Amino acid sequence: MKSAEKKRIALIGAGNVAWHLAPGLAAAGHAITAIYSRSPAPREALARQLPQARPVASLDLEHIAAEVVLLAVPDAALADVAAALKVSLGTIVAHTSGSQPLAVLQPVRGASIGVFYPLQTFSKSKPVDLSNTPLLVEAQEEETLLQLEQLAFSISSKVYRVSSEARSRLHLAAVFACNFTNHLLGISQQLLREANLPKELLQPLIEETMEKAAQQNPFAVQTGPAVRGDGNVLQAHLQMLRQHPRYQAIYSQLSQSIREQASDGPNQADQS
Amino acid sequence: MKSAEKKRIALIGAGNVAWHLAPGLAAAGHAITAIYSRSPAPREALARQLPQARPVASLDLEHIAAEVVLLAVPDAALADVAAALKVSLGTIVAHTSGSQPLAVLQPVRGASIGVFYPLQTFSKSKPVDLSNTPLLVEAQEEETLLQLEQLAFSISSKVYRVSSEARSRLHLAAVFACNFTNHLLGISQQLLREANLPKELLQPLIEETMEKAAQQNPFAVQTGPAVRGDGNVLQAHLQMLRQHPRYQAIYSQLSQSIREQASDGPNQADQS
Repeated sequence: MKSAEKKRIALIGAGNVAWHLAPGLAAAGHAITAIYSRSPAPREALARQLPQARPVASLDLEHIAAEVVLLAVPDAALADVAAALKVSLGTIVAHTSGSQPLAVLQPVRGASIGVFYPLQTFSKSKPVDLSNTPLLVEAQEEETLLQLEQLAFSISSKVYRVSSEARSRLHLAAVFACNFTNHLLGISQQLLREANLPKELLQPLIEETMEKAAQQNPFAVQTGPAVRGDGNVLQAHLQMLRQHPRYQAIYSQLSQSIREQASDGPNQADQS
Repeated sequence: MKSAEKKRIALIGAGNVAWHLAPGLAAAGHAITAIYSRSPAPREALARQLPQARPVASLDLEHIAAEVVLLAVPDAALADVAAALKVSLGTIVAHTSGSQPLAVLQPVRGASIGVFYPLQTFSKSKPVDLSNTPLLVEAQEEETLLQLEQLAFSISSKVYRVSSEARSRLHLAAVFACNFTNHLLGISQQLLREANLPKELLQPLIEETMEKAAQQNPFAVQTGPAVRGDGNVLQAHLQMLRQHPRYQAIYSQLSQSIREQASDGPNQADQS
């Protein structure tokens, strides 16, 4: 691999992903030369953070100095952006989506297409340690892949080559491990608020659960009333949730799934 | 409060909770004098770890030297154990259950009853930092409460007085935050195994999700396809889960709950 090379990078999108990726790339010595967003406010706000960046209102980037164009737009907008994007011949155009295949960029004429996916949850209100964030890269041509890999290694120590197929499965696993657990933590905090209990009380338990899951198969170390088959506690809990039919339904379904998983055995996947 | 006093303690039960609590109490200078379990093997195994402890086969503890008797038995067995237990007058008898009320110990004649609940998930295979484990105490008499509080502070810096009512609500919140999230992490790892992906890939994302939830209202920082209303990704994910109807049903239900929570607003509880 060539020694680290500084790139000029244009960013399409000024949402959560761009908001974290752009400063990280700039801090690694790359130049963010342009930032596009559909409405003016986000691109201007992000450009103010980055001295070399110009906010642009058009997807015609043929006259923008950039070896790499990163698309950090909503998944649903990717196809439209790819169809409208114009870049000079040989520009690397990579999207940052976990769920979309490489092929969604096929319509970008003259580009070397790729994927540059940071596997992390970003919100503007909280800084993220990019050096610890896995970056998943993919490309059609080996040379493009090397360049994206090099760019990834300039901001993170965890870089993986992952195909579109495997990336979509990873994204699905992440929805369970991150989006869904976050929702359950929200329900848990809501129940604590209603009982006037501080949420700090549950913090050690949550941390221990996560640590244990990192070391062992969670199915094998499952605890709680459902896996014990403790019908009295289950009934009491459902009764306590009577004001919350939605939480009640989640409680029933997850408890039943825990029971079924336990009788199948921890190394057995659910099968139709 | 009186200065730290060493207690003689009898343990009823030799499961996960006893297995962690007994060595912790012994390390703090208390004497575990007896360990009861229904079958001989567990009490003998645990007694071998504790030089002063005698494995006992009877719930008649009148002649055992112990100021405190801790009941670390399954919730469903508590009532039967309370009915059969015999202790000398004035002994403190406390259970260690999150879901059971103090009153379940009412049948223990001559005892000062209480609760000594370590809010943590224990499995024999993994040591736990008790000093960071919240201990929730409760008693009918103030003097008993002070003694249990003192005992709790001898092994943990986090001691709370919590009523039976609040403790049962806390236990319910813990089921969502710990038991259910653990199950989702299990599903996530199962999906990674099937895609031949290392589970380490998701670790930074999981840690970030937990850190964020500790600082903010999870409902307010929810990410993912469900909260974005990205129907294409939801459909693709359900399709990928077609071999796993149980996981599919969980996916649908949690995605719908995330949608409904988002339209209700992050500070709104689910209401019937």
